[in-house]
Amino acid sequence: MQLSQELARLFSLLWRITNDQRRGATLARLEYLILARLYRDGAMRAGDLAHGEGLDPSTLSRRIAALAERELVLRVTDPDDRRAQQLQLTDAGREQFLAEQRRRVALVTDAVAHWPASDRAKLAHLLHDLNDSLQKKAA
Amino acid sequence: MQLSQELARLFSLLWRITNDQRRGATLARLEYLILARLYRDGAMRAGDLAHGEGLDPSTLSRRIAALAERELVLRVTDPDDRRAQQLQLTDAGREQFLAEQRRRVALVTDAVAHWPASDRAKLAHLLHDLNDSLQKKAA
Repeated sequence: MQLSQELARLFSLLWRITNDQRRGATLARLEYLILARLYRDGAMRAGDLAHGEGLDPSTLSRRIAALAERELVLRVTDPDDRRAQQLQLTDAGREQFLAEQRRRVALVTDAVAHWPASDRAKLAHLLHDLNDSLQKKAA
Repeated sequence: MQLSQELARLFSLLWRITNDQRRGATLARLEYLILARLYRDGAMRAGDLAHGEGLDPSTLSRRIAALAERELVLRVTDPDDRRAQQLQLTDAGREQFLAEQRRRVALVTDAVAHWPASDRAKLAHLLHDLNDSLQKKAA
């Protein structure tokens, strides 16, 4: 099916282009994933984050240490269990995540800037429907 | 711009759905990335793979050890430098990668199975153009 081939190609291209440090990526890709998850879902335990992202805990803890060192994430007491800790985005972490997200969006926006507006609109519309179909599966 | 929002949503949904172990993922997501790279580009040194995927070498070497343990990758002598080693997919690694890729494709195919064929064709066509635009940027 051609659609799934194009999606696989898209996924691979986006993954390569957006994480390319020669294009100014400011975060390693695992760091971006960690910050994105904390931005989307709020503070959580490292174990839950590792599980949700399919990362092994030792990989994650090395990345978290690097992010904490740069003061992009903070370890705080878990409100549900005072002996445990949660990870939380700092203001600087939130800012850097959003800046990195803007940079990524601009890479795609630039690639289609020369398209007729009607094609861009049509693609956005169909992707919206595709996302709704996938979201139903994900639920 | 709506298109880039839908692409970000698509990327996140695909990432979550295809790597979800409850849906039968047979490889951790970093393992899938490693096998995909070796399948696409052939044998290479671990350092080149780490660099290309933006992974730190110690993260990668733990994953490679796990893949070698399951005999999905093999360490072979680098033909350009006999003191160095390259990673290479085994037949079993190639088979598992292709099976996992088919599983991922089926997840997307199922999600749009109820669409009119003309919408699927239109989306495939526009994604093809998008990929070509992105590929030019990536080159």
